[in-house]
Amino acid sequence: MANIKDVAKHASVSVATVSRFLNKKGYVSEAAKESIEAAIASLNYRPNQVARSLSTKRTNLIGLIVPDITNPFFPELARAVEDIALSYGYTIVLCNSDEKAEKEELYINMLTQKYVAGFIVTTNLLKAPHYEDVSVPIVALDRTINLSIPTVTTDNVEGARIGTAHLLACGAKNIVCMRGPVGLGLADDRVKGFIEATADKDVQTHIVECPFSFEASEKIAEKILIDYPDIDGIFASSDTSAIAALKVAQAMGRHVPNDLQIVGFDGVQLGKMVSPGLTTVAQDIYKMGAYATRMLIKMIEDTSLTEKNVTVSAELIVRGTTRKD
Amino acid sequence: MANIKDVAKHASVSVATVSRFLNKKGYVSEAAKESIEAAIASLNYRPNQVARSLSTKRTNLIGLIVPDITNPFFPELARAVEDIALSYGYTIVLCNSDEKAEKEELYINMLTQKYVAGFIVTTNLLKAPHYEDVSVPIVALDRTINLSIPTVTTDNVEGARIGTAHLLACGAKNIVCMRGPVGLGLADDRVKGFIEATADKDVQTHIVECPFSFEASEKIAEKILIDYPDIDGIFASSDTSAIAALKVAQAMGRHVPNDLQIVGFDGVQLGKMVSPGLTTVAQDIYKMGAYATRMLIKMIEDTSLTEKNVTVSAELIVRGTTRKD
Repeated sequence: MANIKDVAKHASVSVATVSRFLNKKGYVSEAAKESIEAAIASLNYRPNQVARSLSTKRTNLIGLIVPDITNPFFPELARAVEDIALSYGYTIVLCNSDEKAEKEELYINMLTQKYVAGFIVTTNLLKAPHYEDVSVPIVALDRTINLSIPTVTTDNVEGARIGTAHLLACGAKNIVCMRGPVGLGLADDRVKGFIEATADKDVQTHIVECPFSFEASEKIAEKILIDYPDIDGIFASSDTSAIAALKVAQAMGRHVPNDLQIVGFDGVQLGKMVSPGLTTVAQDIYKMGAYATRMLIKMIEDTSLTEKNVTVSAELIVRGTTRKD
Repeated sequence: MANIKDVAKHASVSVATVSRFLNKKGYVSEAAKESIEAAIASLNYRPNQVARSLSTKRTNLIGLIVPDITNPFFPELARAVEDIALSYGYTIVLCNSDEKAEKEELYINMLTQKYVAGFIVTTNLLKAPHYEDVSVPIVALDRTINLSIPTVTTDNVEGARIGTAHLLACGAKNIVCMRGPVGLGLADDRVKGFIEATADKDVQTHIVECPFSFEASEKIAEKILIDYPDIDGIFASSDTSAIAALKVAQAMGRHVPNDLQIVGFDGVQLGKMVSPGLTTVAQDIYKMGAYATRMLIKMIEDTSLTEKNVTVSAELIVRGTTRKD
């Protein structure tokens, strides 16, 4: 395979000139540029990325930290990040944190040593001081880490308001909100939207905390249907919790949507695979991943950000777990 | 942060000696080793991975090529690969190929330039000559690329035989096999198992080709239920196809499992989220990912493989889409 010396020889310039050309640093005459480009094409030369990252102190690797890629929300997010990253010549290092600060720190340390160019981080941790001293750009996705880190989130309050309003419009009068973990910003915002939508309405409401995992949601949904046998609506803070509630309700002989209506939040593909299909407040997961990636690459490439915090609208998707008006 | 010169100075040895020590190449006296180790610990020195990968011509990055991370099988596989890789100090670069040879080649070229240490590849491509000249180790996962590449697969013939036998034991007499793409090894093997299990039995069978995507499976399942209104069993070559068939059957008023029984293949988490839960032939996805990763790391680290081709057993999981005997 051709190396930088071959290119210099073929282009009749010095190795230093080729290096300046490749790293886009320092002066290279137009004539030299042309002969180097011709030499690169004719020799089918591929610059060695590791050697280049040493001189530019940068690779085109982006670390993507997610709680767990097997949670249905994150493959769709990872897909968007990878698609956009690739179109700019970047690749993605996948990191599952299991919501543990130690694992997030381990990955940050391992990848910073490899001159990773930046991080996109989705963390459930309520306190994340280990992001404060990181020497490369970071964009927070789906959750706010702290005010100095640029962030892409869904408008969770408005989304929850729309989802709850739909339940009310379809006739629900006695509604449980399965809310996400207390203290987690997006979960708090979704409860806020639920409360705003029901505040001055003639409905009974109950709020029950529920983690995002399927197994935990199944147990809590079962308890809800026993404790509150008269409810006719559930607004869940995630599609996974909503689908767990659907499964439990059907197993307990409740008809969805005639007897009990359910609205989820997230918009994962899974929602259209269940029967009946899940009515949900869909985040634009792909758009969020794409925004975050473009913002990060701008920061990596020293382009200034026009917006530091981007909020993406959510959209109601009506399927079969709510009644047609 | 301490650099290699600080370590050399602290240990009273030359930089070259520290470098030989770090790269495990060339002679370093026992006394020098001890003082370098002490210096590294006392200075909290972390070797710069990019600089080291230049001298050892190797990074601890593993490229993971999958068709599409949003297909529910692959997040579970990616999770296993990442867990095991991390325990050996390797990290994963995620690559979605969309089953396109060009995209697989692009990633191989990009990552080989970055001195990726090896690849784990899941490809649906029937011909994949672009893997022949790759200069780093490769392990094929879930599908065989060619005979020279070590492979981890499920025993698909046996798995399909067990799944079909269960349908028969539960009383199905008129069964459609929704088979995967013709020519794809694992899909061919699953049909083989289906045929073997039904060959000498008093049952009617039909074989219909169906891709693995949910949308395509929905359309094909609908056509099957119209073309063959008398069927009482479906054996699907993937859980996604099976779940599409379940949804379509329920929408068309067929009762599952009383009127129609369904068995899937894969064992993804999704199968337990639908109602009724999906009876399926479960691959041990985590074990497959873990095996493949350990094999690849052995190859990267020049340890000989005891087995070149590993076959993992599949296991029947009985849930609600088949009748209790």
